[in-house]
Amino acid sequence: MHMFRRLLIASAAFALVCSAAHAQDLKTAEALRDKALRDYLAWDITEDLTTNIGPRLVGSPAMAKAKDWSVAKFKALGFTNIKVDEFAKPSWSRGEESAELVAPYAMKLGAVGLGRTVSTPAGGIEAEVALFKTFADMMAAPDGALKGKIVVITQPMVRTQNGAGYGAAGVSRRIGPVEAAKRGAVAMLIRSISTSDSTVPHTGGTASGEGVVTIPAAAIGVPEAEQLERLAARKVPMRVKLKLESSVNPNNVAWNISGDIKGSEKPDEVIVIGGHLDSWDVGTGALDDATGIAITTAAAKLIGDLPKRPKRTIRVVMWGSEESGGSSEAYLAANKDALSTMVLAGESDTGADRIYSLQVPAGSLDHPVVKAAASVLAPLKIYVDRTPAAGAGADVSGIERAGVPVINLNQDASRYFDYHHTMDDTLDKVRPAELAQNVAAWTSLVYLVADSDVDFRALKPAAPAAK
Amino acid sequence: MHMFRRLLIASAAFALVCSAAHAQDLKTAEALRDKALRDYLAWDITEDLTTNIGPRLVGSPAMAKAKDWSVAKFKALGFTNIKVDEFAKPSWSRGEESAELVAPYAMKLGAVGLGRTVSTPAGGIEAEVALFKTFADMMAAPDGALKGKIVVITQPMVRTQNGAGYGAAGVSRRIGPVEAAKRGAVAMLIRSISTSDSTVPHTGGTASGEGVVTIPAAAIGVPEAEQLERLAARKVPMRVKLKLESSVNPNNVAWNISGDIKGSEKPDEVIVIGGHLDSWDVGTGALDDATGIAITTAAAKLIGDLPKRPKRTIRVVMWGSEESGGSSEAYLAANKDALSTMVLAGESDTGADRIYSLQVPAGSLDHPVVKAAASVLAPLKIYVDRTPAAGAGADVSGIERAGVPVINLNQDASRYFDYHHTMDDTLDKVRPAELAQNVAAWTSLVYLVADSDVDFRALKPAAPAAK
Repeated sequence: MHMFRRLLIASAAFALVCSAAHAQDLKTAEALRDKALRDYLAWDITEDLTTNIGPRLVGSPAMAKAKDWSVAKFKALGFTNIKVDEFAKPSWSRGEESAELVAPYAMKLGAVGLGRTVSTPAGGIEAEVALFKTFADMMAAPDGALKGKIVVITQPMVRTQNGAGYGAAGVSRRIGPVEAAKRGAVAMLIRSISTSDSTVPHTGGTASGEGVVTIPAAAIGVPEAEQLERLAARKVPMRVKLKLESSVNPNNVAWNISGDIKGSEKPDEVIVIGGHLDSWDVGTGALDDATGIAITTAAAKLIGDLPKRPKRTIRVVMWGSEESGGSSEAYLAANKDALSTMVLAGESDTGADRIYSLQVPAGSLDHPVVKAAASVLAPLKIYVDRTPAAGAGADVSGIERAGVPVINLNQDASRYFDYHHTMDDTLDKVRPAELAQNVAAWTSLVYLVADSDVDFRALKPAAPAAK
Repeated sequence: MHMFRRLLIASAAFALVCSAAHAQDLKTAEALRDKALRDYLAWDITEDLTTNIGPRLVGSPAMAKAKDWSVAKFKALGFTNIKVDEFAKPSWSRGEESAELVAPYAMKLGAVGLGRTVSTPAGGIEAEVALFKTFADMMAAPDGALKGKIVVITQPMVRTQNGAGYGAAGVSRRIGPVEAAKRGAVAMLIRSISTSDSTVPHTGGTASGEGVVTIPAAAIGVPEAEQLERLAARKVPMRVKLKLESSVNPNNVAWNISGDIKGSEKPDEVIVIGGHLDSWDVGTGALDDATGIAITTAAAKLIGDLPKRPKRTIRVVMWGSEESGGSSEAYLAANKDALSTMVLAGESDTGADRIYSLQVPAGSLDHPVVKAAASVLAPLKIYVDRTPAAGAGADVSGIERAGVPVINLNQDASRYFDYHHTMDDTLDKVRPAELAQNVAAWTSLVYLVADSDVDFRALKPAAPAAK
């Protein structure tokens, strides 16, 4: 037989086998997807975690209970290789807090201390307000210009589907107090990094810790920020009184908890998915991120229930310190050999509203597994974004930086920042049908990749040669 | 000339005169309406009152400033016969407040003391929770059955266009603490009387004062109420700690402030409209009821600016104690002769969303002035409800009971109880176009009545004869 012809036949036979395998996979993925749409496991997990454990700040008694809850949940759902990786994580906790306008009239301000803020003196700080409508305006003030003032920044956050408004507005929260301190301010209030019109303010981390020179800082409600802006526009002198209490435990520990759905053929090739178990102390961390835990755990469990499990292992990691940072670094430190086994990683951490797009690793857009995923996800109203996946959640960022390919299943964030990091991040904000759509997407996508041989690292396009 | 024919001619001539007058009135009313739709006075008044005065609780320094603001506003807008009627009104004020779940885990509860609640002991009250899903369920508990407990009632409020859900759910707030006290409870929390899903709780009056046996009581946020309900459903024992501080000033005074747009022909026939100047201490009382003040003041001012003023006088009363009660009784006491001069009364006190229907006094549906009003209001998407007007606002209820006919311009309350009596009742919740629609309706309707001779009392159908 002519060599070329033989190759052709072999190739066709291979394609047939492949396409038969693909067709079977596609059918299974579609069945999983449709089952997930009517499955209530993710809802039940979310309800259980938020109701029975409540808020889960790193260092709180609730966080320790949450760790035990995770182990029990993995066991109950049939996960194996359940691991609890403990790591050192200094913790911060909130005491009494209050803020009020004292002049030109008395008005209580909805206020919450930024995460890891320093305390005010016990009696609080009362001072004149220096108000800036943007972070940039404050940055333009020279060193010392804000001496003795309480700085207020009222820059609003823009509502966007992809959440990009958060990064833009968040700079006031992240480094505002440090920059205000440089300029002589004694305390700082920022307009809540929020898309809502609510008085319920958003907390969230601000730069703090050893060597950081900063001042007490809190977020205030959106209506209060606008009220102060209107008074400032009238040149009415304002005084605010702020009281913040907090404490730090430098010797705290946190935990990453993981469980596996073991692969049937290549168990040492691992797809890592998950959400974060910790939350801020306000609300019950329903959207941030009980639902991420629930979506990925339910997806893995649904796959694990298949009569024939996919080839690769699916590992769910319930990350133990997203809001306080350091989870993935701790994971890699505790699992030195894991890096080479991870073929893909992803995190669900933008609430539970609909997923609207998928991003895959660079170079993989034309791979059959991605084509199959596109086909399975299309009826869920998810399109494939041709921009490569990147920045797949704070908890897998360390893994991503270490070279593991990542996927993004992008959730609609239009509503997320109405509730994020507030007392209003509670179960009632989770929409069951949208939660199920998330599970359906994760389940079918992860199944397809887990039962394939796709090697995203090998598909990565070579970097352009240096000139 | 035959007598009948003469009568016919006279009658026709009269009808011609009338219809010419009516046609002119209709044209003026339409022009006023259309001008009002593009007028920003009501917005400016709302912004001014909420920004420069802030929250206006009876007895607060801000309320005294608000009284002066009212006088100045009437003067600036050309009102005459400006009167300040002072009356005795005991006042209540709020101190520090907090509520937290302490078992099964620590969770801060969004809480606000009910208006006129008594204080807890200085250290607060901590007790086991007895949770009831409805007020009726609690009422079924026998005397003494709740000994030592903190009662929680989680009955939700139903969202309705006409606000009827408020009355139905509000009973827990109004008399719940008294009824819980009878049954031995030591404190009470109610699910916020709210249509929102927010943690921001609603305050509002509860029975208190001399001879009333009651207990400290607060409202908690909707998500917290639902969280406690879920824990109760799991039979998890709960403990709550509640701290409420308040004080009462029995010797306080309040003020009704009024100003007139004097009628051109029959100045002693008076149409009384208005809103209430006071508010709760949370938020800035924007929807409740700065907008009512603004709508009615702007309407009267627009009419006052006409080249030819209507026959009758339009009086705007800025009622001084709606949330604490007693305004109209005080008004009648201070203006003993006013009752006979009042031809119609109305109040705007359900926020600033669109008006959707008009109710007129019994027997007047077929009067030409009501027909004209129906025609002018139809393009504003307001229909005439055939049920007679009644219960036209707490502040005119005393006047209404004394026999003065009232009108209702019914505002869409679908959204009102998301914000009402909360820190979220702020200027940003006011929609300028809907506010202007309100002004347009009041302006055109009040003008038509003010320039007419309609006597609503005379039109009132006779009560059915007693058998």
